Amino acid sequence: MGKGAVTRQTILEHAAGVASAAGLEGITIGRLADDLHLSKSGLFAHFRSKEALQMGVIQAAAVHFTEVVVRPALAQPRGRARLRALFERWMDWAKAGSNSGGCIFVAAAVELDDRPGPVRDLLVLEQKKWMDCIARVTRTAIGTREFRARTDPEQMAQDLYGVMLSYHHASRLLNDPQAEQRARRAFDALIKAAAAD
Amino acid sequence: MGKGAVTRQTILEHAAGVASAAGLEGITIGRLADDLHLSKSGLFAHFRSKEALQMGVIQAAAVHFTEVVVRPALAQPRGRARLRALFERWMDWAKAGSNSGGCIFVAAAVELDDRPGPVRDLLVLEQKKWMDCIARVTRTAIGTREFRARTDPEQMAQDLYGVMLSYHHASRLLNDPQAEQRARRAFDALIKAAAAD
Repeated sequence: MGKGAVTRQTILEHAAGVASAAGLEGITIGRLADDLHLSKSGLFAHFRSKEALQMGVIQAAAVHFTEVVVRPALAQPRGRARLRALFERWMDWAKAGSNSGGCIFVAAAVELDDRPGPVRDLLVLEQKKWMDCIARVTRTAIGTREFRARTDPEQMAQDLYGVMLSYHHASRLLNDPQAEQRARRAFDALIKAAAAD
Repeated sequence: MGKGAVTRQTILEHAAGVASAAGLEGITIGRLADDLHLSKSGLFAHFRSKEALQMGVIQAAAVHFTEVVVRPALAQPRGRARLRALFERWMDWAKAGSNSGGCIFVAAAVELDDRPGPVRDLLVLEQKKWMDCIARVTRTAIGTREFRARTDPEQMAQDLYGVMLSYHHASRLLNDPQAEQRARRAFDALIKAAAAD
């Protein structure tokens, strides 16, 4: 990476941390310039607007998510093993987020759901890609006949999303020490219910 | 209600609408005074600080939630019917929230999870009361032997929370027309898995 790309990456990583705790609206050019000891004009050279910066953060998070969650899971054998790998890595992602302000997609979803515009559109696109990915991997488990033929892949995607969101809620807001164990049990129950006889 | 109580109620209702869309941090004395054509000093007479106002909003939402979700459900016969009533009314609550900025508890949970202080403490208290309520009602279905004796009531509470959160996400962010139907199927699957043989 050239110096410009490194700076851009540094800005986005810091901005993602700010956004996960204070929301995407919490990212301001002024604040980032202060935090990173950059000039405002230097920051503007990378991101011409707050909106471009917010979109950069979402895009970078999506690339990171693909690298650490999706790609390694897709390297697993098709079927139930691949779905489990997807879930395990997703949990790891949600836990890693706990060190900062939690999963940035969870925060952004609640923040942007009633704010129409290109930032929301990008988030929706990325979230739909992720839901589709879960559904597609679920289909591979129907293909291997580990899951019943009438398993609904989109239902599985929404259900798994719920397992992650309630884990996020119970662990981060309620500090419930059993949150993770319950999330794993919920996953096992969904797999069991889908299992072919 | 006296005039003061009516004004207080009007302020809280409007503030709740603002908070569900813009977050609790979006409630400022100045903005509310403008919106409601009240003087700032008049508003201060009711709420001495932004924190008191935020706590007032959470408290009022919790009272409202108890009135429209919890109390009518508790009037249903003990057991599975009562748990279903709780879920149905909770879904209605989440849908009604769609007219403004969504469920205020969902928004506040993500906003406050990393902001220690009395506002977060109040939210945690109210959310734990609600989780306990779901667990308690689940126990009545073990009592009536509709659910297996080894059903875990706290697991049911976290699972149902997930069903509601993923419904909220799929309907409000993704505008998925099937979100509600999937949430109902997820509920039915949880009930079925808990059912006594």
